[in-house]
Amino acid sequence: MKWIIKETGFSPERNEDNGNRFLIGNGYMGVRGTLEEFTKEQLVAINLSGIYDKVGDGWREPLNAPNALYALLQVDGEVFHVMEREPGEHELRLNFREAVLYRRSRWETPKGKITLETERFADMDNPHCLYQHYKVTVDYECDISITTGIDGDVWDIYGPHYQEYVLKQDAEALVAEVSIQEKRETVWVKEELWKSEGKEEIIKEDKKILRKISCSLKAGNIFEMTKKVNIRTSKDDDAPQEESFIFDTFIRKKEEHLAHWGKHWEQAMVTIEGDEEAMEVLNYSLYHLYSIAPRHSKSLSIPARGLSGQTYKGAVFWDTEMFMLPFFLYTKPEVAKTLLRYRIDTLPGALNKAKEYGYEGAFYAWESQEGGFDACSDYNVTDVFTGRPMRTYFRDKQIHISAAIVYGIMRYAEVSGDNSIWEEGGLETVIECARFYYGLLIKRVAGDCYELRDVIGPDEYHERVNNNGYTNRMAKYTFEAACQLLDRLEQFDNETVRRINDKYKVAELKNNFFEGAANLYLPHPDKDGIIEQFDGYKKLEDVSVETVKSRLLHEKEYWGGAYGVASETKIIKQADVVTYLTLFAQEYSLEVLKNNWNYYEPRTEHGSSLSACMYAWLACLCDMQDRAYPFFMKSAMADWKGGGKQWAGLVYIGGSHPAAAGGAYMTAIHGFAGVSFENGEIKVKPKFPAHWTKMKFSIHFMNTVYDIEIVKEKDDYSVRTLSR
Amino acid sequence: MKWIIKETGFSPERNEDNGNRFLIGNGYMGVRGTLEEFTKEQLVAINLSGIYDKVGDGWREPLNAPNALYALLQVDGEVFHVMEREPGEHELRLNFREAVLYRRSRWETPKGKITLETERFADMDNPHCLYQHYKVTVDYECDISITTGIDGDVWDIYGPHYQEYVLKQDAEALVAEVSIQEKRETVWVKEELWKSEGKEEIIKEDKKILRKISCSLKAGNIFEMTKKVNIRTSKDDDAPQEESFIFDTFIRKKEEHLAHWGKHWEQAMVTIEGDEEAMEVLNYSLYHLYSIAPRHSKSLSIPARGLSGQTYKGAVFWDTEMFMLPFFLYTKPEVAKTLLRYRIDTLPGALNKAKEYGYEGAFYAWESQEGGFDACSDYNVTDVFTGRPMRTYFRDKQIHISAAIVYGIMRYAEVSGDNSIWEEGGLETVIECARFYYGLLIKRVAGDCYELRDVIGPDEYHERVNNNGYTNRMAKYTFEAACQLLDRLEQFDNETVRRINDKYKVAELKNNFFEGAANLYLPHPDKDGIIEQFDGYKKLEDVSVETVKSRLLHEKEYWGGAYGVASETKIIKQADVVTYLTLFAQEYSLEVLKNNWNYYEPRTEHGSSLSACMYAWLACLCDMQDRAYPFFMKSAMADWKGGGKQWAGLVYIGGSHPAAAGGAYMTAIHGFAGVSFENGEIKVKPKFPAHWTKMKFSIHFMNTVYDIEIVKEKDDYSVRTLSR
Repeated sequence: MKWIIKETGFSPERNEDNGNRFLIGNGYMGVRGTLEEFTKEQLVAINLSGIYDKVGDGWREPLNAPNALYALLQVDGEVFHVMEREPGEHELRLNFREAVLYRRSRWETPKGKITLETERFADMDNPHCLYQHYKVTVDYECDISITTGIDGDVWDIYGPHYQEYVLKQDAEALVAEVSIQEKRETVWVKEELWKSEGKEEIIKEDKKILRKISCSLKAGNIFEMTKKVNIRTSKDDDAPQEESFIFDTFIRKKEEHLAHWGKHWEQAMVTIEGDEEAMEVLNYSLYHLYSIAPRHSKSLSIPARGLSGQTYKGAVFWDTEMFMLPFFLYTKPEVAKTLLRYRIDTLPGALNKAKEYGYEGAFYAWESQEGGFDACSDYNVTDVFTGRPMRTYFRDKQIHISAAIVYGIMRYAEVSGDNSIWEEGGLETVIECARFYYGLLIKRVAGDCYELRDVIGPDEYHERVNNNGYTNRMAKYTFEAACQLLDRLEQFDNETVRRINDKYKVAELKNNFFEGAANLYLPHPDKDGIIEQFDGYKKLEDVSVETVKSRLLHEKEYWGGAYGVASETKIIKQADVVTYLTLFAQEYSLEVLKNNWNYYEPRTEHGSSLSACMYAWLACLCDMQDRAYPFFMKSAMADWKGGGKQWAGLVYIGGSHPAAAGGAYMTAIHGFAGVSFENGEIKVKPKFPAHWTKMKFSIHFMNTVYDIEIVKEKDDYSVRTLSR
Repeated sequence: MKWIIKETGFSPERNEDNGNRFLIGNGYMGVRGTLEEFTKEQLVAINLSGIYDKVGDGWREPLNAPNALYALLQVDGEVFHVMEREPGEHELRLNFREAVLYRRSRWETPKGKITLETERFADMDNPHCLYQHYKVTVDYECDISITTGIDGDVWDIYGPHYQEYVLKQDAEALVAEVSIQEKRETVWVKEELWKSEGKEEIIKEDKKILRKISCSLKAGNIFEMTKKVNIRTSKDDDAPQEESFIFDTFIRKKEEHLAHWGKHWEQAMVTIEGDEEAMEVLNYSLYHLYSIAPRHSKSLSIPARGLSGQTYKGAVFWDTEMFMLPFFLYTKPEVAKTLLRYRIDTLPGALNKAKEYGYEGAFYAWESQEGGFDACSDYNVTDVFTGRPMRTYFRDKQIHISAAIVYGIMRYAEVSGDNSIWEEGGLETVIECARFYYGLLIKRVAGDCYELRDVIGPDEYHERVNNNGYTNRMAKYTFEAACQLLDRLEQFDNETVRRINDKYKVAELKNNFFEGAANLYLPHPDKDGIIEQFDGYKKLEDVSVETVKSRLLHEKEYWGGAYGVASETKIIKQADVVTYLTLFAQEYSLEVLKNNWNYYEPRTEHGSSLSACMYAWLACLCDMQDRAYPFFMKSAMADWKGGGKQWAGLVYIGGSHPAAAGGAYMTAIHGFAGVSFENGEIKVKPKFPAHWTKMKFSIHFMNTVYDIEIVKEKDDYSVRTLSR
């Protein structure tokens, strides 16, 4: 295990991918792994969590802070920028155990070599701070200059968000204060710098405040500077920690940083013996998850592309509860609670959204921003043939989102044993989600069972379908959860009991939810053991993914929608039936699980990064570990490898894939290690891929940390579970 | 009143329109008003009623018979074809009182004039026969030849349908027997000819058998020939009437023909004084309806484009029951019954279609061919941008079709007083349609009212909507009709009562239908008196028809579907709310009727020929005769003027518009004359346009013919109703 992801040699076409692969962050901000001399053209971003802005008719999206890590080297008056002057040696290296990004570039000139070395990390204790170290070594006598400071000309997808810039030198620091369009809010960036030598000249340009540091170096000399970047916004309510930035600050902060991460890995690291690659990519995935964990807040969640940019509007999807949550639940329960508190606190937004559609209860945002505002547009895709926006139904028909919240809260309570979440509003959240589904239930006048029609399931290529199995099962789960909570209502504190009784007719609700759960239609396996994804799925054209792909007339055209190449075929975007068979596997026979895996897998495009892990996990439950393995690796390597789709038309859709990272973790823990929780106990039924010999990891369960070690011995496993 | 529609001068771009405008027919066949020398390139068609064929993956469509009216003139070896040699004088003249089409073309040559005069009519007594008269006059000495006979190379949209030709001379007659692809059925065409002089040579070409008649004419001489064409198909079950064709047959047949039509007009003509143009175009519309009335059958209906070609697959739509039926009901009840018997006899097809979708009862074909086969495709429109078929929902969601059948049968029984239709299967038809709707009813588990969701109403631009008012009202009507019939079941003959009791649990059905009618949701007028066309219509973009049109990127793109320019706007294709407000006007206040007319009219594209008449009729009910008048004229002139859309991409969609003709009649009788039937009596509440002074027409009601004369005297009307 090397704990290293690196890129050797400079390839400009890798800039976009590398921005994600070499990301550092601390939950308050994510810093794309771009180089110091890069600007918005190379998609530099210091992406801020939980602050959004909307310009004109563009999509509302999160902000990128002015970039105070900017630095451009000149030697003897010539620019040393990798895009203009290819370095002879170049390496980007993220040590993800340390969470420090290292860069080294060496240029050969006729006179000799110029070496640039930098490092950066995001402070884990003070989330407003970034640290940078910048070092130039020359092996011939020359004049160098570094133009560094704050580049406020940020990369935006639907910008520009900043309408007013205040740029100034404040004592030794450079400061940029920018105001956003939508509200009179501000982002404030301060850059403090220590340098080994050189004279300084302040340069103010439009949207930039920079200092040009110049000095003459002798052969073998080194120029060094360290930098502290402090970022705050008008949404922050914590007190600023003022601390002078001096020569040894960087070194001290780095030591604290390594200690912080070292402690983190004691809880989070997953050891795999017999497969170093798997261990490497899985822990790299966990690095990503922790880097974007909102530890600085009590109520905040993680967007679908983490903090890697403005893609998908920086919005929170079901990805968080269904895919990322387990990692935090088992390793950092307080972060899991923060994620769920965000949902509890945005319940009013969900109630409002339901009301907007004439529905009861809580209809959570498909793309949730501040306050539960649904950033999802009714026109979320552009028709490549006509350039027109296409009416999409993600916002209004993908009703399974509310059940994901319930699922997350229930899992949190089950695993953490922390009942305070109910008292803090979790109860109302579950009840309102159940009320939402109850209000949507219909029945045929001439029939008995209850149905949910006109929905979109996880497979978004089939719109407006009836009785999507996943949606129905999750709605039933919601009814059951609400019933269970209402049944044990008297166990909560008096204040909570009173509040719930004041708000609701509890007996009536219990009755409704009981009826809802009892009568809601669930598709049964047919004679071949196959469960139909939704009413009529079986009548669709049965063709291969390749055939469907061959029908594309334009490489960027949408596969779904009313007339997409997949829409009238059995080809699905991602795990759908397989997702709920995984979550509710105990309700089905092994044969049914296997049949559906075998039926749906070849019919799945895996066009979503949420797909592979569900196939991996279910394959484990079906004793098909070796079929699980490639899907697990795909999920774990979503960011490691990069190379995914970066652009849809003119819209950047690249970014990191925290849900795939979380999915890989779920597969490792629940699939290969076979962890489950039954009656307050941890059960372990390992199902290793053939070449794995040992797994070791820790799990927070009911307020105790358990270290679990599984050793494969021939055809058997020995499992050791020790509480700390 | 001239009873003449004519075209003077030859304009090749008018060929397609003129084919419809100058159509003759007798219900067994329609003969497009094309010229004798024309072939399939000019869309010649002898369109046959009730016989269909499908080739490969093409749409199933009716057959065009081999054209035995073909005749090409040559003079001194040169071809006299209007497309190659423009005639100096040219006139097409349809006398629609006579139902005879006259053609006269005169060419000037350097040597003198050649005049060609023809006439044709379709036999009203023997529906298999067509008659033609062909006359050439020359004013200089010349050799002429006429190549005439049977041109079997017919115009097809999705052909070729004929796979085997047997062409022969049988005694004096030419015979073509052709077999169709789908089944081993045949079409048999015989041409008998009398000529004034000339020698004859038989020419057999691929798909053609012709005779070349040659003779020398002196200046001032005339060549004449008359022709009888006999067409039969293997579907005919009447005995052939063999009759020798001799010199005076044509004259005698024409006399009989004029007498037949004279008698017809005694019953059907609508006299309008003060507006000769209106009278002319209205009676021209009635000419069209009678020309395509299936008098030769006991069970046959009229396609949406009549017998003017293969457009819309020669299929029967709701057009027949909702728009054409009243004309036949009031002037030829036996034809009305024939139309409805077609529906009763195709009940098994409707039961099958319902079963195919997992529904109960009778789901009639949206595009009905033989046996109730639904010719409507799931992909009925082509995307002009991608060339791909678009998934359309006419077939599966336009459920209001079944109610139209019920409406037609109920109207027939009400107006004719003929109860035998119930005993012949009408009862089962109504019951099965009511069962169909009952099976589709849903209710919210948390709600009370019944709903019909995921439908398409008359306005096809908005697909998959919930609670379309028209659909819900018509379903309610169906429940009410079924209840009413079941309530008086004992009044039918014993055999019928026994049959119904054997087939159905009558008490249960009555209860269900009663509940269905009582609880089915109907949208109520809002505070402005506006009735929402379907759930959510009011939230759509409110723009003008012109704005929507200006958004088209391609002149032929479909306005509806998922992403059409109208789909997310309030712009509708045709009368929808206005249609059911018209039919159920007594249930609404005058204010509501007016408000909705004023609200929906500017939002209606009138992209269907079924739209104008409903606006005209409702305007009369709202005392807005002068606003009604232009819509009435538009409806009455749909074929008179021509100029409608003829092509959609590469598919011919032109043809005659019998529903618009029927709609004009409804407006005249129910709107301007204000005829209604109450408690077994005819009520007349005239509402003339300002310039009309008198109307006169006859109505069959309860087995009696009433002559109704309405005279406007200043601001009052005197009405005289006399039974014959």
